Amino acid sequence: MSRIAYVNGRYLPQADAAVHIEDRGYQFADGVYEVVAVQAGRLVDEVLHLARLDRSLAELRIAAPMSRPALAIVLREVIRRNRVCDGIVYLQATRGVAPRDHPFPADTRPSLVVTARRVRVANPKALDEGIGVITIPDIRWARCDIKSIALLPNVLGKQQAREAGAYEAWQVDRDGMVTEGTSTNAWIVTAAGELVTRQASSAILNGCTRVALLDIAKRTGLNFTERPFSVIEAKAAREAFLTSTTSPVLPIVRIDEAVIGDGRPGPLGRKLRALYSVHSDEQAARPDIA
Amino acid sequence: MSRIAYVNGRYLPQADAAVHIEDRGYQFADGVYEVVAVQAGRLVDEVLHLARLDRSLAELRIAAPMSRPALAIVLREVIRRNRVCDGIVYLQATRGVAPRDHPFPADTRPSLVVTARRVRVANPKALDEGIGVITIPDIRWARCDIKSIALLPNVLGKQQAREAGAYEAWQVDRDGMVTEGTSTNAWIVTAAGELVTRQASSAILNGCTRVALLDIAKRTGLNFTERPFSVIEAKAAREAFLTSTTSPVLPIVRIDEAVIGDGRPGPLGRKLRALYSVHSDEQAARPDIA
Repeated sequence: MSRIAYVNGRYLPQADAAVHIEDRGYQFADGVYEVVAVQAGRLVDEVLHLARLDRSLAELRIAAPMSRPALAIVLREVIRRNRVCDGIVYLQATRGVAPRDHPFPADTRPSLVVTARRVRVANPKALDEGIGVITIPDIRWARCDIKSIALLPNVLGKQQAREAGAYEAWQVDRDGMVTEGTSTNAWIVTAAGELVTRQASSAILNGCTRVALLDIAKRTGLNFTERPFSVIEAKAAREAFLTSTTSPVLPIVRIDEAVIGDGRPGPLGRKLRALYSVHSDEQAARPDIA
Repeated sequence: MSRIAYVNGRYLPQADAAVHIEDRGYQFADGVYEVVAVQAGRLVDEVLHLARLDRSLAELRIAAPMSRPALAIVLREVIRRNRVCDGIVYLQATRGVAPRDHPFPADTRPSLVVTARRVRVANPKALDEGIGVITIPDIRWARCDIKSIALLPNVLGKQQAREAGAYEAWQVDRDGMVTEGTSTNAWIVTAAGELVTRQASSAILNGCTRVALLDIAKRTGLNFTERPFSVIEAKAAREAFLTSTTSPVLPIVRIDEAVIGDGRPGPLGRKLRALYSVHSDEQAARPDIA
């Protein structure tokens, strides 16, 4: 089956799907994106993702490429045409096509690309055994709260992790505090048993899985603290894990050379993963909203 | 006349010139670029630009999309097909097309796009009267020495300048020192008469016009210092100017609300502009190297 992509009003064979060379996404990274999990054909945390998309667009003053109801329909149509039951849908919106010049062009229509693919959301071995992360300096810009496509530092960090045999790289600010992974949020359970993740600010991308999980923790009566934590604190932690759309609550058992806890996924991470799983199952079982 | 673009081996009408939606330049800003001035049909400072291109590619471990002699031919062919006598040629190289995933893909061929256009390199009014700049915090990443297409912060800064009625925004680091403009290097002549521009480091893009001008200054026996300078020092300067491929030595007469010197372009900037003009005229008069 050949994949289908939505590109600026048309559903195209993905192999032929293209954008203009003067799309500002290509020349200036002048755009934003979202990745939404699809479970049993349904979008998980769609409301959170579309709200964040609106926020990213607003911060960059890029007009919405279409209304939210229209976008909801396009997302579903791309999922349907690609017969994705469990996987992800990816959408990217840019400021559009204009002769190359830095300032915002006048009267340009934003571009929209949507793709979908099947993907095993969780790797069972990684979930059972946990994964390793390395720590690297955070060299990104000062507006990491915007989910922009200017992902070059994230690419370099992820590559560095993979070459070190790790799954992810935790980025560390000038004060020695962990910001987040290159495509994931960072969490620890401290030696004293405190569940910690860094508070939302311009230093991190406020992950939708992060937000959903904090909400679940709150409703479940699990205590947590949103604050920066240091690499030193993380290496001495009882547990550590990362969250993202494609890896909700993935246990970390190694940070650089330090073994976390007893080297196996810990109980609080396991509990949060189970709770998130209930949450996403619920979303997948609802009548669809669009 | 319709413009022609070179895209991955083909010369295409620019209106139809496209890249795949999974080009990593579009999804990750995973690429670099150069803008080279064309004068009398000849490339100005080509050697400097192609050396910098090689450096940017090497820093990102992107393979050269083609040999340097082949690239030299493509640049000339794009200039010829677009009948550009005075203008610019733009080239962009990315890591290529691959299913979306942060780490470097294996065995992907880099993408190459080349365009050219006529452009008046210097605006006479701006040269005669000088332009204004504003100062803004430098929010970019830590590797500004790489000429990457992750230009979103530069776009935002340039837009901010234009909305403030200024030509450019000078970015300022945490220590209050000017790094550079959003697409230009920054220079001052201090109250004491010292010609100053920030030294090349990961905090700035080492402009080819900057390098050429320093070389000219050295050969001419003009003293200069490469060091950071503060906004305060800049506002008290005798002269200020910016350099770039498209605006070699453009005088600055206003920084935020501060008037520079007597509010008119100063003599040292004028002299450097004349010297650079001799240099580019010489390059335009040479037999072509390719």
